[in-house]
Amino acid sequence: MNPLAAVSDIDDSDTSIFARKESNVQTYARSFPVVFGKAQGAHLYDVDGKKYIDFLAGAGTLNYGHNNPELKKKLLEYIEADGIAHGLDMHTDAKEQFLEALDELILKPRKLDYMVQFTGPTGANAVEAAMKLARKVTGRHNIISFTNGFHGVTMGALSATGNGHHRGGAGLPLSGVTRMPFANYLGEDVDTIDVLEKMVTDPSSGVDMPAAVIFEAVQGEGGLNAASMDWIKKLAAFCKRHDILLISDDIQAGCGRTGTFFSWEPAGITPDIVTLSKSLSGYGLPFAIVLISSELDIWKPGEHNGTFRGNNHAFVTATAALKTYWKDDTFAKSVREKGEYITKRLEAIIAKAGAIELKLKGRGMMQGIECPTGEFASEVTSRCFKENLIIETAGPNDEVVKCLIPLIIDQETLEEGLDILERAFAEVVQIAGRKKHLVSVA
Amino acid sequence: MNPLAAVSDIDDSDTSIFARKESNVQTYARSFPVVFGKAQGAHLYDVDGKKYIDFLAGAGTLNYGHNNPELKKKLLEYIEADGIAHGLDMHTDAKEQFLEALDELILKPRKLDYMVQFTGPTGANAVEAAMKLARKVTGRHNIISFTNGFHGVTMGALSATGNGHHRGGAGLPLSGVTRMPFANYLGEDVDTIDVLEKMVTDPSSGVDMPAAVIFEAVQGEGGLNAASMDWIKKLAAFCKRHDILLISDDIQAGCGRTGTFFSWEPAGITPDIVTLSKSLSGYGLPFAIVLISSELDIWKPGEHNGTFRGNNHAFVTATAALKTYWKDDTFAKSVREKGEYITKRLEAIIAKAGAIELKLKGRGMMQGIECPTGEFASEVTSRCFKENLIIETAGPNDEVVKCLIPLIIDQETLEEGLDILERAFAEVVQIAGRKKHLVSVA
Amino acid sequence: MNPLAAVSDIDDSDTSIFARKESNVQTYARSFPVVFGKAQGAHLYDVDGKKYIDFLAGAGTLNYGHNNPELKKKLLEYIEADGIAHGLDMHTDAKEQFLEALDELILKPRKLDYMVQFTGPTGANAVEAAMKLARKVTGRHNIISFTNGFHGVTMGALSATGNGHHRGGAGLPLSGVTRMPFANYLGEDVDTIDVLEKMVTDPSSGVDMPAAVIFEAVQGEGGLNAASMDWIKKLAAFCKRHDILLISDDIQAGCGRTGTFFSWEPAGITPDIVTLSKSLSGYGLPFAIVLISSELDIWKPGEHNGTFRGNNHAFVTATAALKTYWKDDTFAKSVREKGEYITKRLEAIIAKAGAIELKLKGRGMMQGIECPTGEFASEVTSRCFKENLIIETAGPNDEVVKCLIPLIIDQETLEEGLDILERAFAEVVQIAGRKKHLVSVA
Amino acid sequence: MNPLAAVSDIDDSDTSIFARKESNVQTYARSFPVVFGKAQGAHLYDVDGKKYIDFLAGAGTLNYGHNNPELKKKLLEYIEADGIAHGLDMHTDAKEQFLEALDELILKPRKLDYMVQFTGPTGANAVEAAMKLARKVTGRHNIISFTNGFHGVTMGALSATGNGHHRGGAGLPLSGVTRMPFANYLGEDVDTIDVLEKMVTDPSSGVDMPAAVIFEAVQGEGGLNAASMDWIKKLAAFCKRHDILLISDDIQAGCGRTGTFFSWEPAGITPDIVTLSKSLSGYGLPFAIVLISSELDIWKPGEHNGTFRGNNHAFVTATAALKTYWKDDTFAKSVREKGEYITKRLEAIIAKAGAIELKLKGRGMMQGIECPTGEFASEVTSRCFKENLIIETAGPNDEVVKCLIPLIIDQETLEEGLDILERAFAEVVQIAGRKKHLVSVA
Repeated sequence: MNPLAAVSDIDDSDTSIFARKESNVQTYARSFPVVFGKAQGAHLYDVDGKKYIDFLAGAGTLNYGHNNPELKKKLLEYIEADGIAHGLDMHTDAKEQFLEALDELILKPRKLDYMVQFTGPTGANAVEAAMKLARKVTGRHNIISFTNGFHGVTMGALSATGNGHHRGGAGLPLSGVTRMPFANYLGEDVDTIDVLEKMVTDPSSGVDMPAAVIFEAVQGEGGLNAASMDWIKKLAAFCKRHDILLISDDIQAGCGRTGTFFSWEPAGITPDIVTLSKSLSGYGLPFAIVLISSELDIWKPGEHNGTFRGNNHAFVTATAALKTYWKDDTFAKSVREKGEYITKRLEAIIAKAGAIELKLKGRGMMQGIECPTGEFASEVTSRCFKENLIIETAGPNDEVVKCLIPLIIDQETLEEGLDILERAFAEVVQIAGRKKHLVSVA
Repeated sequence: MNPLAAVSDIDDSDTSIFARKESNVQTYARSFPVVFGKAQGAHLYDVDGKKYIDFLAGAGTLNYGHNNPELKKKLLEYIEADGIAHGLDMHTDAKEQFLEALDELILKPRKLDYMVQFTGPTGANAVEAAMKLARKVTGRHNIISFTNGFHGVTMGALSATGNGHHRGGAGLPLSGVTRMPFANYLGEDVDTIDVLEKMVTDPSSGVDMPAAVIFEAVQGEGGLNAASMDWIKKLAAFCKRHDILLISDDIQAGCGRTGTFFSWEPAGITPDIVTLSKSLSGYGLPFAIVLISSELDIWKPGEHNGTFRGNNHAFVTATAALKTYWKDDTFAKSVREKGEYITKRLEAIIAKAGAIELKLKGRGMMQGIECPTGEFASEVTSRCFKENLIIETAGPNDEVVKCLIPLIIDQETLEEGLDILERAFAEVVQIAGRKKHLVSVA
Repeated sequence: MNPLAAVSDIDDSDTSIFARKESNVQTYARSFPVVFGKAQGAHLYDVDGKKYIDFLAGAGTLNYGHNNPELKKKLLEYIEADGIAHGLDMHTDAKEQFLEALDELILKPRKLDYMVQFTGPTGANAVEAAMKLARKVTGRHNIISFTNGFHGVTMGALSATGNGHHRGGAGLPLSGVTRMPFANYLGEDVDTIDVLEKMVTDPSSGVDMPAAVIFEAVQGEGGLNAASMDWIKKLAAFCKRHDILLISDDIQAGCGRTGTFFSWEPAGITPDIVTLSKSLSGYGLPFAIVLISSELDIWKPGEHNGTFRGNNHAFVTATAALKTYWKDDTFAKSVREKGEYITKRLEAIIAKAGAIELKLKGRGMMQGIECPTGEFASEVTSRCFKENLIIETAGPNDEVVKCLIPLIIDQETLEEGLDILERAFAEVVQIAGRKKHLVSVA
Repeated sequence: MNPLAAVSDIDDSDTSIFARKESNVQTYARSFPVVFGKAQGAHLYDVDGKKYIDFLAGAGTLNYGHNNPELKKKLLEYIEADGIAHGLDMHTDAKEQFLEALDELILKPRKLDYMVQFTGPTGANAVEAAMKLARKVTGRHNIISFTNGFHGVTMGALSATGNGHHRGGAGLPLSGVTRMPFANYLGEDVDTIDVLEKMVTDPSSGVDMPAAVIFEAVQGEGGLNAASMDWIKKLAAFCKRHDILLISDDIQAGCGRTGTFFSWEPAGITPDIVTLSKSLSGYGLPFAIVLISSELDIWKPGEHNGTFRGNNHAFVTATAALKTYWKDDTFAKSVREKGEYITKRLEAIIAKAGAIELKLKGRGMMQGIECPTGEFASEVTSRCFKENLIIETAGPNDEVVKCLIPLIIDQETLEEGLDILERAFAEVVQIAGRKKHLVSVA
């Protein structure tokens, strides 16, 4: 998403209901100014029937593709049978089946002893609940989050979010969070966990002992910054050493996106608290949960609540997604393989750019290319859209072209999309010699 | 909802997945310890097929009943046709149709010039966006909210929420909000708008000039406190006089609950900003919007965002609900008539209580009875549940038995439910003589 | 002081060092644009030798007059002998003698079991320490302060101060304080302790249970609002009932100003914490202390500190003041008698004003007259200054002409000053018929 | 000062007024448990006449020694003549003479175009005013302060202070400040201005664009951390480049302590705002000012105020100090020479410690030795006190023995004091082999 880039103005001659009635706050519709009608798998169709390849996937919400047939079938059956749609946080059989599938297919195999909190169905709400709980458990105020982290735009979540465009919208100074440099933020030579440790343990540094550290293993909105497994292990060890809770915000990087269900599995750690949302329902339906180490589940009944904690349609599709894709390692393996293929293709694009410095970012099927400027990246994505490829940018200056491809994409469509991307890059590389603003900031 | 009342402990012998895996934060499931399977109109069914009358309606989310047939039909068709489920905030035909229906059926007939912001799909998110925008528009920090107001549990929304149980969960002092007494809070003799005016206009009172006042015309969670139309008019005039924005949180009281689409229509006012959620989708699907007076829509693109701003399933059912129920006044009129019937029945209950002081609260189909204590009210709702009526409490001490009945309920079921309620009250009144704790706090 | 009133601009032709080098923040010098050279008792002299009567007394800092001879003698001896001037918080014999005098002459006779904290030498610092300690003792965040209260302009003190002019200067929203209406703030018919009790005890009011209530028995800067002894008693009883600490900010009203050493003595209460400053040193030297009920003195060593905690010159003059004026009731009695005389004279002024509504404010030697507007009051004080009487205004709109007369003033000078004041009022009353802005705000 | 170190408990058998009546918050009196009576130059005397050498100098408040004869003479004359003692912020001839001396002797020769704000007479008050003004001028909230910085203990000042012991006393989360690593905080290899620049300029780092950076050229309480002139220059250039105000907190390091009047003079920079206090009055009297670049002096009259802004006794002694010591470079030169002598002596102590790692800290006459632990340092200062040398510790763990020697000390006394210090170090080095806790933390 590109909120900071030059924004297409609302066209005054546009008489559509969107121009007349939808708030100026809208964003994605500016990059893709068509009206979409339906979608299947890795494809979107506009109302005129034109077909688009989707390398955005609902900003990571559609890991299993649009209207996934297995999930769709279960959802239709459920609705037909007048299954509970909305049940506050009451017990329903749809919720029961989700909890059982989550426990059997995800938690037990990974030896994870988590309790499940159903928060309001947005990632921000899960983050708010996680931060509240960490403060409650430890009796401390401070929470450490990282440069370029993105955790949502409600006031509590926003305090942990790095992006200044969003923070500026708050209208109040945000408090309770200390920002620390993420992995490699200060260059290869500075170990940022050492910086963190020094500042947290020095009684006179001015950084209050934190309740928790919240981190993303791969920072999606922040520009596909992937922490190494060593860094993640060192972070977890640091937290354990000082009795600080470790919160994994796995909202974008989780649900298989990096090649394992949780993004931090290869590091062999166990965060104290994990937030999940986005692709959790599998169908794009609003749904979020917080996983809480059982000994930390000290919530009083109703202390965090919300009307839409029980989106039963989402329970149904989430259960179907778990049963279809996580009963064994087949799906995860395919994601890792596609990830490797994507790496190869992106490396090839970078190699061809010659003197223009491009950089591979990310991990698994959460990869992209850092361009010299946001203008450059925007030029690439615009050209892709003209060839019916939907793809967006990320990063502090929207300088990273980000591939969030549905994990279930078939090889042919994947290649087709990457071909378009490759051509777009080639064209922009070519004109970058003439248009200096594409490669350097004024 | 009754988070503060004596809470049924998690039964140690309970081997269900809920006991083993769902966080202790759960609430409603404690009052209604069964597993629900399906639902239709004003009825819920547990997995054993037992039938319940629903006087809770998803805490006001199911104004059109469970699985409303008109809405269900449209939703099934949409899913069958692979309509877009999740579209970030991109333009889709489902969104187009929703905007057109809202404009034609709700805004234009009421001469309301609002732009529509699609926030994350929870009420709290809409409240956060409304407060952010008010601060941005005015450049002021302070927002006035009222005693017993409830606006959600994210950090920003929580700062405006009165309930101490929820506020205590924040783990950080909440700031940016000044609390003022709601209508009649200081008794009949004190005009609380005068108090508000005195404190806001005195340059030395210590209350900073606010960006906005946020109010509920009927406070749902706060105990069905209904402001009079005079009070609402006076509040709106006060805001206009001092260039303070007026935010109507119509999340629970809107969408027809009080007998008009917006709860404040009879007062003839036009709030600057309105938040809607709960029954907006009509089907219990997560959905929330902020209505913004067009001249205040100064959002920058993407300044408030969220993954689930485009819950297209909700657009489909919301559109169907508007077209089915709001094409003319027939439905609203029926709500007002049922409201009058409910008033009569509740008055009869109160009259029979004799020396036990009960009090009628609320307006339209958002009415209830204030009991001497929370224990008393809890005793009433427990007895109702034994007779298969689902009903909950509200208010500072959960002392108000609250009827949030689906607006589409048929007369027969309505009477059946009220009969159960009447019997429960009669029983509790009878034993209250013996059990003193039911009528007075120790 | 009149920071909000029309301010005399810095004269561009003024080549004095004050115009060239002193910040625009200066205030009193605008009302009294002369350079003062020396002072004695109730008189000030400018550098040209012109004599002024002082009805401002260092805003209540010079209760014992300028350069009080008894105090001056002790101070000169001390300096001559190379007594410690600055000793951080080390033990010195000057401090020892002050503590002994305070204990023997003030605390013991009043049966007050207070420990003494020497904070930085300003009132704001004492208020900050008192609020910190209250939060530490109770583990609660919230502190209740009153409309029109003034407690200083550092960030912590400012959060408790009502005046918007000062609060606006903070540059950050101030938090941790809830504002409640002071005695009679909502008119004679509303008992504001009832309002306080209702809002604090309602678990859903949105007002967090406070650590403490901070109050001034007579609000000096706020406009000489004097709480009745009944209100003060009721406030103390309310605090005791709910385990809330009661902090008396006696910085302006204490040290004998109202006719007893502490302003709340006639109410027979014992606040948990008391702040003193202003006239405490007796000589105008910076000095402040916090009196702490001994069981609440849970400070860790050095947890609140400051370089100037040990202003030994102030210890010397403070000790001399206590020994000279508080060894028996003679002095206090004379203050009460002069207070009664002032009341009579001010009542006569009010009586003569006819249709112009003037109002007597305050108590003891902390009295004044509320005028219809700040312009009216400012007109009065300007005329007084032309007749060599120094007197200032207070109140939300600087509409109160405030007599803070040195307590040691002789009867002749007192009468002379009051005669000037009476003439000034008579003149302004007369012209108020012609100049409407003096009696009503546009 | 050593608030965190093992604190001498209040002796129960102590029947002194200090044990009975002074709050537990006292600190220095624990390290030096005697009652002082008088003082002259670099010597203190207890009430029994015992003589002590003073290497603490009122924590940097007594640069010109105790009861400096030149200053004393002027002060006595002023008091004898009934000069104004307390004048709020009215113009007095004592203030006039101070402003003229400051302008002629300090500002003009250094080409500094500052306006002078007289705040409340404590350093914390000056810091609060400086931070308020920076926020007001820029319209931004955030202020950057550094690890181990110390700026006072009122709420606003505390937010900028690093020390956790003090911050913990606040009772409220402190906001509005972002902490950055000071010079060399991350080791020799990390340029902390680069870290600062990266975090401030990255729009997604989560660090809001600051109103100001507040720094100490030598961090006194933080452990005598001296920034290099290069670092200071780079900091100033960074601020200029991004329109961020630079605030020099020169409260401890200013007034000649490092060998020039302002501590940053050798760097050739001009901060936008400077705070001065401590040794400003020259006599240990409470006094503080803020120097404001004239174009930034946008204060409204009275927007920051305080009862003790006009401590005229302090004006008199401050003027005498400026005239006596700053009419030419003689005094400053002598400070630099003594500083070099101190360096040599401390280096000798370090050299003799052999395997025990000691480290030279600081600059000018603000130097000390970092010991392996706080226990080690405390052992050194205790031994010094037994030999009648008063000296204290600083630093995060009180591990730095800090020499804050009166600048006017004669060579003989200086040597005598350093001899004592040398012996104490030698003794502690010797026993450190046997007592492991002196050299390593458990």
